[in-house]
Amino acid sequence: MFDKTQKVLVISGHAADYVWRAGGTIAKYLNHGAEVKVVVLSMGVRGESNDLWDQPNQTYENVRKIRKSESMAAAECLGVKDIEFWDFEDYYMDLESEERITRLAKLIRDFEPYHIITHGELDLLNPDHDAVNKFVFKASVLAISNGVPIEGSKTSKQTRIFGFEPHQSEICNFKPEVIIDITETIEKKEAAMNCFKAQKHLIEYYGMKAFIRGNHARRLSGSKQYKFAESFTRRFPYVGEWLV
Amino acid sequence: MFDKTQKVLVISGHAADYVWRAGGTIAKYLNHGAEVKVVVLSMGVRGESNDLWDQPNQTYENVRKIRKSESMAAAECLGVKDIEFWDFEDYYMDLESEERITRLAKLIRDFEPYHIITHGELDLLNPDHDAVNKFVFKASVLAISNGVPIEGSKTSKQTRIFGFEPHQSEICNFKPEVIIDITETIEKKEAAMNCFKAQKHLIEYYGMKAFIRGNHARRLSGSKQYKFAESFTRRFPYVGEWLV
Amino acid sequence: MFDKTQKVLVISGHAADYVWRAGGTIAKYLNHGAEVKVVVLSMGVRGESNDLWDQPNQTYENVRKIRKSESMAAAECLGVKDIEFWDFEDYYMDLESEERITRLAKLIRDFEPYHIITHGELDLLNPDHDAVNKFVFKASVLAISNGVPIEGSKTSKQTRIFGFEPHQSEICNFKPEVIIDITETIEKKEAAMNCFKAQKHLIEYYGMKAFIRGNHARRLSGSKQYKFAESFTRRFPYVGEWLV
Amino acid sequence: MFDKTQKVLVISGHAADYVWRAGGTIAKYLNHGAEVKVVVLSMGVRGESNDLWDQPNQTYENVRKIRKSESMAAAECLGVKDIEFWDFEDYYMDLESEERITRLAKLIRDFEPYHIITHGELDLLNPDHDAVNKFVFKASVLAISNGVPIEGSKTSKQTRIFGFEPHQSEICNFKPEVIIDITETIEKKEAAMNCFKAQKHLIEYYGMKAFIRGNHARRLSGSKQYKFAESFTRRFPYVGEWLV
Amino acid sequence: MFDKTQKVLVISGHAADYVWRAGGTIAKYLNHGAEVKVVVLSMGVRGESNDLWDQPNQTYENVRKIRKSESMAAAECLGVKDIEFWDFEDYYMDLESEERITRLAKLIRDFEPYHIITHGELDLLNPDHDAVNKFVFKASVLAISNGVPIEGSKTSKQTRIFGFEPHQSEICNFKPEVIIDITETIEKKEAAMNCFKAQKHLIEYYGMKAFIRGNHARRLSGSKQYKFAESFTRRFPYVGEWLV
Amino acid sequence: MFDKTQKVLVISGHAADYVWRAGGTIAKYLNHGAEVKVVVLSMGVRGESNDLWDQPNQTYENVRKIRKSESMAAAECLGVKDIEFWDFEDYYMDLESEERITRLAKLIRDFEPYHIITHGELDLLNPDHDAVNKFVFKASVLAISNGVPIEGSKTSKQTRIFGFEPHQSEICNFKPEVIIDITETIEKKEAAMNCFKAQKHLIEYYGMKAFIRGNHARRLSGSKQYKFAESFTRRFPYVGEWLV
Repeated sequence: MFDKTQKVLVISGHAADYVWRAGGTIAKYLNHGAEVKVVVLSMGVRGESNDLWDQPNQTYENVRKIRKSESMAAAECLGVKDIEFWDFEDYYMDLESEERITRLAKLIRDFEPYHIITHGELDLLNPDHDAVNKFVFKASVLAISNGVPIEGSKTSKQTRIFGFEPHQSEICNFKPEVIIDITETIEKKEAAMNCFKAQKHLIEYYGMKAFIRGNHARRLSGSKQYKFAESFTRRFPYVGEWLV
Repeated sequence: MFDKTQKVLVISGHAADYVWRAGGTIAKYLNHGAEVKVVVLSMGVRGESNDLWDQPNQTYENVRKIRKSESMAAAECLGVKDIEFWDFEDYYMDLESEERITRLAKLIRDFEPYHIITHGELDLLNPDHDAVNKFVFKASVLAISNGVPIEGSKTSKQTRIFGFEPHQSEICNFKPEVIIDITETIEKKEAAMNCFKAQKHLIEYYGMKAFIRGNHARRLSGSKQYKFAESFTRRFPYVGEWLV
Repeated sequence: MFDKTQKVLVISGHAADYVWRAGGTIAKYLNHGAEVKVVVLSMGVRGESNDLWDQPNQTYENVRKIRKSESMAAAECLGVKDIEFWDFEDYYMDLESEERITRLAKLIRDFEPYHIITHGELDLLNPDHDAVNKFVFKASVLAISNGVPIEGSKTSKQTRIFGFEPHQSEICNFKPEVIIDITETIEKKEAAMNCFKAQKHLIEYYGMKAFIRGNHARRLSGSKQYKFAESFTRRFPYVGEWLV
Repeated sequence: MFDKTQKVLVISGHAADYVWRAGGTIAKYLNHGAEVKVVVLSMGVRGESNDLWDQPNQTYENVRKIRKSESMAAAECLGVKDIEFWDFEDYYMDLESEERITRLAKLIRDFEPYHIITHGELDLLNPDHDAVNKFVFKASVLAISNGVPIEGSKTSKQTRIFGFEPHQSEICNFKPEVIIDITETIEKKEAAMNCFKAQKHLIEYYGMKAFIRGNHARRLSGSKQYKFAESFTRRFPYVGEWLV
Repeated sequence: MFDKTQKVLVISGHAADYVWRAGGTIAKYLNHGAEVKVVVLSMGVRGESNDLWDQPNQTYENVRKIRKSESMAAAECLGVKDIEFWDFEDYYMDLESEERITRLAKLIRDFEPYHIITHGELDLLNPDHDAVNKFVFKASVLAISNGVPIEGSKTSKQTRIFGFEPHQSEICNFKPEVIIDITETIEKKEAAMNCFKAQKHLIEYYGMKAFIRGNHARRLSGSKQYKFAESFTRRFPYVGEWLV
Repeated sequence: MFDKTQKVLVISGHAADYVWRAGGTIAKYLNHGAEVKVVVLSMGVRGESNDLWDQPNQTYENVRKIRKSESMAAAECLGVKDIEFWDFEDYYMDLESEERITRLAKLIRDFEPYHIITHGELDLLNPDHDAVNKFVFKASVLAISNGVPIEGSKTSKQTRIFGFEPHQSEICNFKPEVIIDITETIEKKEAAMNCFKAQKHLIEYYGMKAFIRGNHARRLSGSKQYKFAESFTRRFPYVGEWLV
């Protein structure tokens, strides 16, 4: 059931992760008037910009700029207004520092998300994604602990934490627990994906993923109107008033 | 979100299973006006009536009668009006016969449940429970298959299938996926449990389980009003419009 | 390494399974001159012909005939000459009878496959597929046992057993262990899939699966020429002279 | 299928690991003319030289010297010419530093291995081994990433990564995925093992392991000529042209 | 802690299983004066007598006789006086019949074992072993159920159930939970194994297994006197007065 | 079997963990005259004192003092005389430093425990607990390694390592492997729990856990005198002379 007051926080390891993996869901929440904030931890300069580096005389700063502008354009396609670029170096991200964990804990306290969406527990091919998963969980624990003082913030409530589907789902032990229909926003997602010009092969790939997940969504629910979908893991059990 | 038109079908291996494991949830759906049907496959005469058999000159027929009347009384406490006793022999139930599977498939087609609740995949101590799990799944597949003719019935829609929490959860690989707040119906559940006079120790036990699951429900959701809860597995992923 | 003398036996639960799940691999072996035999255990009349049953006055016999002719046409597209239809009833297949197990064991002894391809261990949505998996394994054990006399046959050698990818891979614990490039035969596979006229949605679906697996194949191997692929599980470890 | 141009890189946590766990496979590749490089990360002075420390007045430097000379002698028995000793302190190895990861990434880029063999994911009794597993994986990811500049090196191709069998396989969740026949090199392996004079009990132990794995190799393949074998895990699925 | 009054019941699928997998433990209990009963369900004529069938003009009856006499001789070597041969056909054993389950349930009630040792949950290469595992568990549940009348028997107490180590432990998900030192009875076990003349390769194999498990036993316990061992799974958690 | 000379070392992440999770077992060992040492790594000021922080003007130092005095009072209730407070900061504990690991390794060498009880492998809600698990394991490995010199200590023997049951057992993959009857010390445990005045809800919760585990203990063992119990995981298999 949609509740406009339930805010969504998305933490993306690299510049494009939030688009491939949750773009349709993000656009849907925004479509209906919910608040969504996206935090992009790195530009993915070192690890996720292979095609850009194939160009001669490429520089870190140039790749960084391109990725940032692509990511901003994609955000706009999805309707995202609230996006932060933390600009950490990737491959490998240092996410163990107290300063960085506290920074995210403070953001959680200040934004007060009901749902957090970020990387899931295992990406067998990308160690950065695993690091982000741990980082977000740790920060979320600090955020809800009364005894952890962070200047200018007050303790937040327990959030729900969802995990992105990784690129090669099956070898990463990914098991979809929550499948969200994105039929109404598939076009926004496609537009957003098309902003990442150096990753054409991924655009086609993630379009097909959405189609395949749509097939599963119909089959498992009996709801024939679902055409495209995104899937997620859920860190904790569902708790509520009624069977879902 | 509660939807009065979504019917709930509960399949219970023995006379009391549906009470210990889902009594609060059943009562809650009924409280709010949804239709709930309970099918009790066996009276549990051989496998779940140890205390009755401790009495001298006990007979199968007598135990059967006692268990049935207890189960009927418990159903009344929960508000269940629609209950069927199929009266199979237990320990071990023969649930492989085409006749029995077709009977349940027909019932599913006729009742058109949105949710089915029954035994989960593994009960390390009770092979009947595992057999019921397979039985219900097979019947549900027949029920939704166009090409399976059953006289007097028409193909039904895909249902959601939830698994009961077994008696010793942790050694049965039980992982709660859906935790339902039963604070409003805990008293009905207690009244229902008290109908099973020969199983006093279980009444206390399942009261504590509900308290413990209530603690978990509060902790995981941040909703302080949850005092008692029941938990279930979910056979398939959640599919829907919004994150839950 | 391709070895023309290594025969491939494919055991398909229903009329179309071998096409969706292994059509490209079958066509490739045939392209290069290896012997491939396909055994279709059932026509999938009851369980996998939903669209046909939507037509008025449909009959078992008519569906059976349509499915058989589609399956034969598909086989021809793949280049399969050696195909047997055992025509068991499906939903649910009775595969526990000694007569049926012995029949398959004899076929294994007579055909002497090096590789067997059949359904994998778990299909959370299709109990027939799980039954076929057990059936094939049991028959293969009888086939290689010296002490099991079957008239007119002599004991065969240990085979390798591969499992099909199920329809919803991730909820069936499917983990690809062997990914086969089918770039050279993708067109034959598409032609074969197009023979199943009542299952248009699956044709598109399995075309995308092949594309997605092709992406994985390139990424994991570094071999850029792989465009389309099929994936399988492996029942036993690889044993050989060299790392693969 | 053997391909002489496919180089093998072996990363060994301590001085003797590569011998116990992959000595036969290494010798076989060398026998047939492939290039093999071994990197020994530590001498195992603190963690794997218990018997040496039982001698009075033992010193770190002395144990280090003995272990190194034993390891060099063993390498010679196997035919290894290309071996590097990085001489890190063990128990516990610090393998998180950027400098060390970059050093290995550069080595991978320069050597261009087709196969990497190193410690598997879990050794319940030896935390150094787990650290090496992570270290090698991280370095291999850097090595293939276009956007990670390392002076004097150019991006390498995706490699295959195999995991050693740990000492107590079954309590470490070890499941053999690739079993390599080492019948032709078992004598070289035995000679190499005999270089580690202070670990007599392990020589007998790993001789038996090779015999037991040989039994499994015969049983699973039907190839009676396999007498001795070594087994490995495979980090990623096999990708190729044909079923293996 | 040894308690002479705790009886041990061993259920062996085929004629030699109890020797390879638990011979040392059986001999040890007998050495110290405990009662041990062995039930051999089949002679393994069809499935575990390959070498005998290699001889010309071999017959079922002859293999049966040889296997029985070998099994009796082995029992004598171990000191077993109480052994029953149920002589079921193997490959595949029919263990689903009510008559057979009741027969075993009655035996359990009459013998009153404290420990039951039988096949574990998964043997990836031998479906008979899995069937025996289920058979014994079901019978044990009947045996302790008050409401299950079996003529001439009275309800027994809950037993502990241990699982044999299968032939290829690692591919069968076998994880040792209980490792028993058999140093004092290794010679009896070897003598018993030598009774199975047509299986020479297994004698050497299981001798090495005992040595390898002895190495593990020493390492995990610090008890240097353990030279040979056998290992088992445990169906239920250990329950007792003190940490073990 | 109880052996008075087998010392027990308990490592508790926060001030109250050892009481909720092992208080009954600790009191029992002490009752019978065994030596037990408790090490409390942190006061849980930041992470486990939410209720105290709800009071106005609360300070770190004040919470620290309250928690320490509560923990000392609880220890006294259990009969613990030997308790150390290491007073690390919690949320998150830094347990990777060489100095801290060496400190614990030295303590293990000096105290010479036969059993170590500490946090298990996974607490999905509390990252400190996971860190303690790794910390204790690493220190225990250093402690038994001959080649690791620590001033003033000599190498200790292999210990057994048991894991606490976490707060939400089932979502933490907790599977009880050892269940200890604490009927004789339940009152001491209750007294100890009552010392933690700001955590009333946990006192009731852990009382019920003990009751529920008592139910399981009776059911699995057939020993009707077990009323209350605590459960643990076991890091390594049981090794011994007899089946347990």
